Amino acid sequence: MKSSLFAAALGALAAACASAAPSPADPFDFRQAALVYPRMNDGVAQGQASLVGNGQCRNSNGSSLSGYQPALYTESVRPQIHFSPTVNFMNDPNGLVYSNGTWHLFYQYNPTQNVAGNQHWGHAVSTDLYHWKNLPIAIAPEKEGEGIFSGNAVIDFENTTGFFNGSTPKDQRIVAMYTLNTDTSQTQHLAYSSDGIHFTKYPGAVISRNQTQFRDPKAFWDEKSSRWIVALALSQEFGIVFYSSPNMKDWTEVSRFQSYGILGYQYECPDLFQVPVEGGPDDGKMMYVLAISINPGALIGGSFVQYWVGDWDGSKFTPRDNAVRTMDFSKDFYAFSSWNNSPGKKAYAIAWANNWQYSQQVPTSPFRSIQSLPRELTLKYYRPTPQFGDLILNNRPVNLSAIHGKTLYKSENGNSARNQTVNLSGQGAFDITATFKLPANANITYNTIASFEIFAGDGKQSVKTGIQMGEPAVAYIDRRGAGQSFAAQNPFFTDKTSGIIRYAANYTTASSENADQYVLGPLPPSAYLDSTDQAQYIKLQAVVDRSVIEVFVNDGELAGTSVFYFDNDQIPSKVTVSVGDNKLQLVDLEVRALNSIWSKCKE
Amino acid sequence: MKSSLFAAALGALAAACASAAPSPADPFDFRQAALVYPRMNDGVAQGQASLVGNGQCRNSNGSSLSGYQPALYTESVRPQIHFSPTVNFMNDPNGLVYSNGTWHLFYQYNPTQNVAGNQHWGHAVSTDLYHWKNLPIAIAPEKEGEGIFSGNAVIDFENTTGFFNGSTPKDQRIVAMYTLNTDTSQTQHLAYSSDGIHFTKYPGAVISRNQTQFRDPKAFWDEKSSRWIVALALSQEFGIVFYSSPNMKDWTEVSRFQSYGILGYQYECPDLFQVPVEGGPDDGKMMYVLAISINPGALIGGSFVQYWVGDWDGSKFTPRDNAVRTMDFSKDFYAFSSWNNSPGKKAYAIAWANNWQYSQQVPTSPFRSIQSLPRELTLKYYRPTPQFGDLILNNRPVNLSAIHGKTLYKSENGNSARNQTVNLSGQGAFDITATFKLPANANITYNTIASFEIFAGDGKQSVKTGIQMGEPAVAYIDRRGAGQSFAAQNPFFTDKTSGIIRYAANYTTASSENADQYVLGPLPPSAYLDSTDQAQYIKLQAVVDRSVIEVFVNDGELAGTSVFYFDNDQIPSKVTVSVGDNKLQLVDLEVRALNSIWSKCKE
Repeated sequence: MKSSLFAAALGALAAACASAAPSPADPFDFRQAALVYPRMNDGVAQGQASLVGNGQCRNSNGSSLSGYQPALYTESVRPQIHFSPTVNFMNDPNGLVYSNGTWHLFYQYNPTQNVAGNQHWGHAVSTDLYHWKNLPIAIAPEKEGEGIFSGNAVIDFENTTGFFNGSTPKDQRIVAMYTLNTDTSQTQHLAYSSDGIHFTKYPGAVISRNQTQFRDPKAFWDEKSSRWIVALALSQEFGIVFYSSPNMKDWTEVSRFQSYGILGYQYECPDLFQVPVEGGPDDGKMMYVLAISINPGALIGGSFVQYWVGDWDGSKFTPRDNAVRTMDFSKDFYAFSSWNNSPGKKAYAIAWANNWQYSQQVPTSPFRSIQSLPRELTLKYYRPTPQFGDLILNNRPVNLSAIHGKTLYKSENGNSARNQTVNLSGQGAFDITATFKLPANANITYNTIASFEIFAGDGKQSVKTGIQMGEPAVAYIDRRGAGQSFAAQNPFFTDKTSGIIRYAANYTTASSENADQYVLGPLPPSAYLDSTDQAQYIKLQAVVDRSVIEVFVNDGELAGTSVFYFDNDQIPSKVTVSVGDNKLQLVDLEVRALNSIWSKCKE
Repeated sequence: MKSSLFAAALGALAAACASAAPSPADPFDFRQAALVYPRMNDGVAQGQASLVGNGQCRNSNGSSLSGYQPALYTESVRPQIHFSPTVNFMNDPNGLVYSNGTWHLFYQYNPTQNVAGNQHWGHAVSTDLYHWKNLPIAIAPEKEGEGIFSGNAVIDFENTTGFFNGSTPKDQRIVAMYTLNTDTSQTQHLAYSSDGIHFTKYPGAVISRNQTQFRDPKAFWDEKSSRWIVALALSQEFGIVFYSSPNMKDWTEVSRFQSYGILGYQYECPDLFQVPVEGGPDDGKMMYVLAISINPGALIGGSFVQYWVGDWDGSKFTPRDNAVRTMDFSKDFYAFSSWNNSPGKKAYAIAWANNWQYSQQVPTSPFRSIQSLPRELTLKYYRPTPQFGDLILNNRPVNLSAIHGKTLYKSENGNSARNQTVNLSGQGAFDITATFKLPANANITYNTIASFEIFAGDGKQSVKTGIQMGEPAVAYIDRRGAGQSFAAQNPFFTDKTSGIIRYAANYTTASSENADQYVLGPLPPSAYLDSTDQAQYIKLQAVVDRSVIEVFVNDGELAGTSVFYFDNDQIPSKVTVSVGDNKLQLVDLEVRALNSIWSKCKE
């Protein structure tokens, strides 16, 4: 969060809300927080929070559920397998860290309104990245006018900060770094926790710069230089500045990454992290990726994430080239952040699944915004063209088996099937996966399209996704028919988005003498095709969840995330899988219901 | 033009058309060209073409008008002030050169079908960049399977090529350089003309590279190194390669610009050209801009143009930074090309106003595609943010006075006006320009929007453009309501596009000791505001022309180009100008009809 647009735009709203707020009577009425600006740990002080147990139904502001029980997580627009706060407005994921068997998700949260403002760090935890348990607010502002803006968290195994005593298990030593926003400055601060719930603020700023646009720290322990490194955005100067520290308290600027990619209006949420290469001669090797969110100013409108693959030498990030790549072809994937301390040399991440162009106006209540599906990231060599190899961030959902429900349809090797309609019975969340085959040397037209159309219960509204075959093939999402009342009046709720599909490099046909050959240099066109039948196979997966669709092509080579809002309280109820002309074949199809992660709240 | 997508996709179509073509009976039936593959100058051989006179109504393939007379340039979707061919498919502008008082516009043209393929260089000329006279095809393939692909043209004043004799005036010595496409190669070739109409091919390739993806030469006489330079796209390697030559025939590779910006599937149409700085301490200084079109793979889907401002040292282009910028925020501006030899240190350019995602399917007949309005380009210092200065390509229509018609509405200093409806009487082409004022310190919301809604005659369909105020303000185009029949079925015809608005640097408040201060380094926030009343003024201009809208903010700081297709043969007939809330004021408004450039064809 935080453009001056929103600060400016919401000034009037915030003031209006404060003056109209009810008098503080019900201690569980989340709205009263607008008046009192709850201090850190107010919720926790009740002693009810823990990292285990069946507390999933706790309110996101730490109070009991009395203020919201009746319709908890059952609204027609409420995703069932995506994280969202019980009430009010959420944006960026923050403080992502794996600690003592638990995945922590903090997030930018306004506990008092369903628009941005009054920023706190909300908190939830999971053991599988799908089932989330709401915890009380972790970090709150001290006084009116302050905001706890985005940041991240690390595990201080060796107690370099001195914040912990010997009795705290090493992997429970959580240090959060966040931006304290005021009208006159943005400065960087620490808070720490020994139990993963209660946070203590370290007094004073650890980095300040006489800046109002300086935020979103992403710190990590740097193995190369044996010290802490933090990336911070000089948002309106379009610079990412790196600092180093031995103890998280004393920081020294070491380098700057300046004016790369799409600038837009501001850089936000820098994230430098390591990602394993998947497949090929570098399989398992960890490489660095720098991600930067920008808002507004995405070419597609509003918010988006761009990234560079490169080298980190302990002080400086050097991208492999001057090209800019994006993680998601659609409009609702922003403030991307990776988990620190992920076990097993894996990279996991999540993003806010909305866009500042309309996120404060979308027709969801009493909450606004969700986090994306958790993603597992790898780097893979792809062939964007027959003449070019590229190391691309692969981006697929974390294994969905944790939430798999009933199989609604399953076919394999059904080469003759052209169209298939499957009723979507369940709670509104489904995993639809198909493989399409374009036979060798088939002529293609603009209508050589394989697609899913997911209908609302009324049979009229629908959201679509598909693949237009060709060189390159193109994946798209089309939400034009998915609800009119919001889309028709909002000038920024773009209907159609698309991205081009690359092809996995065919390692077996390339010389392996030089790893660079996998990156630059020709491969035969047959690298596009299956080696046995010279056909082209494309796998399309759509995870649809009431008001969001996330599309993955070829297990994450390409991803697209779009929210949509059916009118009249409709939820997904039927999918039609079809191929646009008879050259294209539906090879296999599986449709599964996904189980609500909030089901315990409904018992 | 030319992705293998289209080659592959159209193979079947081309074959089908050839077999279904009529027997050659009518010598003016343009369709027969499908069979005979007309050789270069077939049309000119009739001796009817000239650069002057009232021949504007000639068919685009050089024949008389008998095959098309009845509805010439009168279709409801036919723009009246934009260049389009009488019949069949046009794409990239080519060979843009100013010669002997005449602006030449060549273009990629399929004289035989209303989809891409069978590429020729079509030709038109103008003395004001608005009124175009169709001339016969300038360069045609010699045999089936060849295509005359994109390229440009230069004036060989000093006859370095030896193509001209002393009697040819120096500024009539036109040399075109184009790509010859076959199934197995793309090579670069020359053709020359002493009269601006008839072209003679120079035998053989002047640059070849054992490449099938090597095209779109843009040559110019380089003042820095006193030799010819050409930029060429290694399209699927994502490189722009520069060559030098003393004589346009013998070329030596001198440098390469590799892997910058958005890569997409291919680089096309590189253009390195000089642009004057407008205003500020560098006023009048010429700087270099490198533009690259990419398709597909634009973040907004399909085709777009990106550019870099930088230095050219006679051999190598070095961008000022690693950021990438775009010329147009919407979907229909591609294959940008500038005119060589423009008089008076000015930069003029044009682009194809469509997108390969749907250009071969849009509901226009018997023609497809138009060129954009001609643009005058300058470089201006802008403030994308209070903390950052940037040299941005300013992009405004060439002075419209050449086609100005009746004034339909004109108000000035009408501070109290909030909404204004003006009937659009004329031929379907209009210039709508308004200035909006946001008073100092006004609170803004998401509804602080100033907008134009241009209605079809049925009063139901409309295309919209507007500005949402804020920091930054955002301009948008919304074609969601402008016709359903095409938009609802095409998965790539995106409805809503937007771009952020920057602010002119306030030179008078900045130190002028160092020109770089205008580029990097803080300026006071007041640079955003008018110095007298601290209000924010934004000027919005929409040129709407039957099936296209081009939007310009603040005289070209931001531009957006969108085609749209009203159903039921409707044309623009009414505009409503409105402000979304009462903080915003409509300061002045002028609505003018624009005169059809094709009117002589209708007499």
